[in-house]
Amino acid sequence: MQSPIADPPPLQPGTLRVVPVGGLGEIGRNMTVFEYEGKLLVVDCGVLFPEEHQPGVDLILPDFSIVRDRLQDIVGIVLTHGHEDHIGAVPYLLKLREDIPLIGSALTLALVEAKLKEHRIKPYTLDVTEGDIEDLGPFECEFVAVNHSIPDALAVAITTPAGTVLHTGDFKMDQLPLDNRLTDLRAFARLGEEGVDLFLVDSTNADVPGFTTPERDIGPVLEAVIARAPRRVVVASFSSHVHRVQQVLDAAHANGRRVALLGRSMVRNMTIAEDLGYLKVPAGVLVDFKKAGDIPDNKIVYMSTGSQGEPMAVLSRMVNLEHQIEVGEGDTVILASSLIPGNENAVYRIINGLTKLGANVVHKGNAKVHVSGHAAAGELLYCYNILKPKNVLPVHGEYRHLVANQKLAIETGVPEENTIIAEDGTVIDLRDGVAKVVGQYDLGFVYVDGSSVGEITDADLKDRRILGEEGFISIIVVVEAQTGRIVVGPEIHAKGFAEDDRVFDAVKPKISAALAEAAENGVRDSHALQQVVRRTVGRWVNSSLRRRPMIVPMVIEA
Amino acid sequence: MQSPIADPPPLQPGTLRVVPVGGLGEIGRNMTVFEYEGKLLVVDCGVLFPEEHQPGVDLILPDFSIVRDRLQDIVGIVLTHGHEDHIGAVPYLLKLREDIPLIGSALTLALVEAKLKEHRIKPYTLDVTEGDIEDLGPFECEFVAVNHSIPDALAVAITTPAGTVLHTGDFKMDQLPLDNRLTDLRAFARLGEEGVDLFLVDSTNADVPGFTTPERDIGPVLEAVIARAPRRVVVASFSSHVHRVQQVLDAAHANGRRVALLGRSMVRNMTIAEDLGYLKVPAGVLVDFKKAGDIPDNKIVYMSTGSQGEPMAVLSRMVNLEHQIEVGEGDTVILASSLIPGNENAVYRIINGLTKLGANVVHKGNAKVHVSGHAAAGELLYCYNILKPKNVLPVHGEYRHLVANQKLAIETGVPEENTIIAEDGTVIDLRDGVAKVVGQYDLGFVYVDGSSVGEITDADLKDRRILGEEGFISIIVVVEAQTGRIVVGPEIHAKGFAEDDRVFDAVKPKISAALAEAAENGVRDSHALQQVVRRTVGRWVNSSLRRRPMIVPMVIEA
Repeated sequence: MQSPIADPPPLQPGTLRVVPVGGLGEIGRNMTVFEYEGKLLVVDCGVLFPEEHQPGVDLILPDFSIVRDRLQDIVGIVLTHGHEDHIGAVPYLLKLREDIPLIGSALTLALVEAKLKEHRIKPYTLDVTEGDIEDLGPFECEFVAVNHSIPDALAVAITTPAGTVLHTGDFKMDQLPLDNRLTDLRAFARLGEEGVDLFLVDSTNADVPGFTTPERDIGPVLEAVIARAPRRVVVASFSSHVHRVQQVLDAAHANGRRVALLGRSMVRNMTIAEDLGYLKVPAGVLVDFKKAGDIPDNKIVYMSTGSQGEPMAVLSRMVNLEHQIEVGEGDTVILASSLIPGNENAVYRIINGLTKLGANVVHKGNAKVHVSGHAAAGELLYCYNILKPKNVLPVHGEYRHLVANQKLAIETGVPEENTIIAEDGTVIDLRDGVAKVVGQYDLGFVYVDGSSVGEITDADLKDRRILGEEGFISIIVVVEAQTGRIVVGPEIHAKGFAEDDRVFDAVKPKISAALAEAAENGVRDSHALQQVVRRTVGRWVNSSLRRRPMIVPMVIEA
Repeated sequence: MQSPIADPPPLQPGTLRVVPVGGLGEIGRNMTVFEYEGKLLVVDCGVLFPEEHQPGVDLILPDFSIVRDRLQDIVGIVLTHGHEDHIGAVPYLLKLREDIPLIGSALTLALVEAKLKEHRIKPYTLDVTEGDIEDLGPFECEFVAVNHSIPDALAVAITTPAGTVLHTGDFKMDQLPLDNRLTDLRAFARLGEEGVDLFLVDSTNADVPGFTTPERDIGPVLEAVIARAPRRVVVASFSSHVHRVQQVLDAAHANGRRVALLGRSMVRNMTIAEDLGYLKVPAGVLVDFKKAGDIPDNKIVYMSTGSQGEPMAVLSRMVNLEHQIEVGEGDTVILASSLIPGNENAVYRIINGLTKLGANVVHKGNAKVHVSGHAAAGELLYCYNILKPKNVLPVHGEYRHLVANQKLAIETGVPEENTIIAEDGTVIDLRDGVAKVVGQYDLGFVYVDGSSVGEITDADLKDRRILGEEGFISIIVVVEAQTGRIVVGPEIHAKGFAEDDRVFDAVKPKISAALAEAAENGVRDSHALQQVVRRTVGRWVNSSLRRRPMIVPMVIEA
């Protein structure tokens, strides 16, 4: 669907409006806004990590423009779980209004509070657990346990007089979860019996056939690798993956090894998880990193971050010999993580670098050391069949994932006309069991770069791409205001273009000649003179060098 | 191995010297130089495609420095097959000496000649086929059939009084190849019996367990997808993959469809392949693209390039609606190709774009429409066991691939001390069955950018990365030479930094103040004044905006 941009009609009484603000057409910055009789409920508020065509950007936020003028109408932000793509943008929304209540499970709230502390925000929170029902303004919210790659994830069923909406958040249906907390299909069945009018469902793995392997299958592999390891073991994974860390602790313990946590976020998250009882640390297993050096090499496991090749994380610093731990011959490094698209070359550089240092690198390409946190196609079929939703809105995914999920819904009997392929900003109204697209807001990307939010535009990124591909040539000429006569220059400076500035000797006379001609023709305006310089240099560089650098002419009147 | 840079000792009589110049530590720009009694033999001369940390680079060449002063000693360039990473740098070497003979199979030579024609070079060639033995100076070369993802690939056994070296080129061991031309394991067995002193062996898939699926298995999948396709079919693959195109032609023919070739390189290569008898076109199947529009949608297949998401290739242009063929609802697009690391996001953009246009996209993630061209671990084990080489030098691969290949050699009984993990520029001497590393040349990357070769340096690329991530701020101040007094400025121009120039109002007085203070202290040198500006702006931008753009100060004396 390629929707024309069209503001929706005013919301009618008795109608629920649903606007996915982020997470459709992308994996990340998940956020959905629900509106009923003047009140807004937000579900999730995450960040998106930039791709290579968004250079230099730190984070991408959802576009808050549709709630910015209605902050007082927001009754709360429900957070389905504690991953960055669901909670990472909360500080930026709370900066607009600090007292919006946050609703989530204990772990989710602890993680978001730790994050908010860095932004010096102390939020109002409401701690909920599976089975709880809370009235948030006109929205009756029932929370349902779901299983994901972080503990304590919740789906939320939102009921208003307009009908019931079930939003899964991120989930999978591991039938043997490590913490025995299943995705609650009994609750899904009950909700289905009562009638789910609109089903917002995670699409991340909808194009993956079959079923996600249980997390539990990784334990024995980790244990076997650690048992065989002759020296130190480093395991890298996501810093919020409590169950993965649990399995590493257990495997280390079974092998008589101790574990030191590395990386600020790993230490912080696992401290929270242990305090709240989600991480069960076998007695005496954890050791402070500073004391780990005293432990023999074959008795230690380091649990670290950096499995995506992030340049500042522990693993990259080890490869660059910038970390206290010097990986060497006989060490074993396990990348117990997925390979997020776009990170491949960075991760392969890590693997090559560790191999060069003499380490044995174990990763999902050569051992079963990772499983996904999202439901694959086979699981989604179960889900649709148990729930039998009236209408389906696939969320959390690029276009291809949304369409794959839609096909699954249709295969289980949902009429095609009751499935909605939407984009960020699509406005869907629900009333009497009918869900309809009624408009499309024009929402953009909000870039965080350094301490700036939303100041970097797509035009700046286009400039960066040109600069990054081709470099620039700047030409400075000082001219006499009255006559246009050149007083100083042309001076030429280039960066990222060529090492040897002598290449420009050929074009300097051309610039002088072009400016002289323009002056003779009475051109005095410095903007017009700059265009003359740009054209002259552009033509020369294209024809003689077949390159297209950014050309920055500066004609200054003195 | 991390070798210190050390020039090798002079080459002794009766000793063969082997220097891998490219292809070790990388996938691409394969080139090996053999030296015996003053003469040089080159095997392959390919290009490497840049990664994201080499922005704006078109191609990367092997570093020719070790042959540059010895061009007259080169007796020939043996080309194992016609892929870009094996022949792409030939024009650049021939520009140094045009009459170096090229030795290869008919298809390989035809492809390199077509390429050289664009550079206006007509090479001297020697056409060889499997079983041929040619004396190239002191090197007796025997050519052996190998199977790869392009027809007519050859391994080469090079014999001198110092011993026999077998170089596989790229290969796999498909036991049911489409053209029935097997990798000649009988010849490998015979060479092994006679004694292979050094084995240079393709490592690309050495870390992939098991065996590469036969190419033939793809045919039925293509046929089934085409049979079910309700409207047009577009198949994208590599433009040199003759057997893949053959299978598309056959599958189209079996379904009563005609085929139009799209893309300059596809048309050129397939014309060559058909002329030479490698592509067998079923009568009446091919149709000119210009006439394809008259054929009903369910009777046409387009065979195109662009399967890696290359922005200028057919498939990207279709997605951007810049191609005559407008992909729409009900069309089927098959990506019959691998996903080269680093291209993931570009390819997923293509898949999302095509899905959005309504097409059904079939790719290796959801159907068996691609197999690799390289031997996996299981095949390499066969190879080692049949050949029983004395010494092994894994080639063609990143470090992790070379080490994986070395491990396979050791597992089959090659003593570890007889395996060599080398880098580009490592010098290996072979004599009396003993292969030894004797030195390490410092070889670099040679970047082609536009019409420039080797002018862009790593420092330029570093500048580009900074510019691409952060943009730049340039500050122009014109000062009076005698007094240091500011005459014009500070004027500030920025690109890729922020949309609104008013952000700089805060720093302008700081610059003026810093320059005034420097002038008061007698600083007149414009370079020193530029440093003052750089420091002032740098400090301001870091502390107030937490950014690190390139700062380009220009203090001009008037």
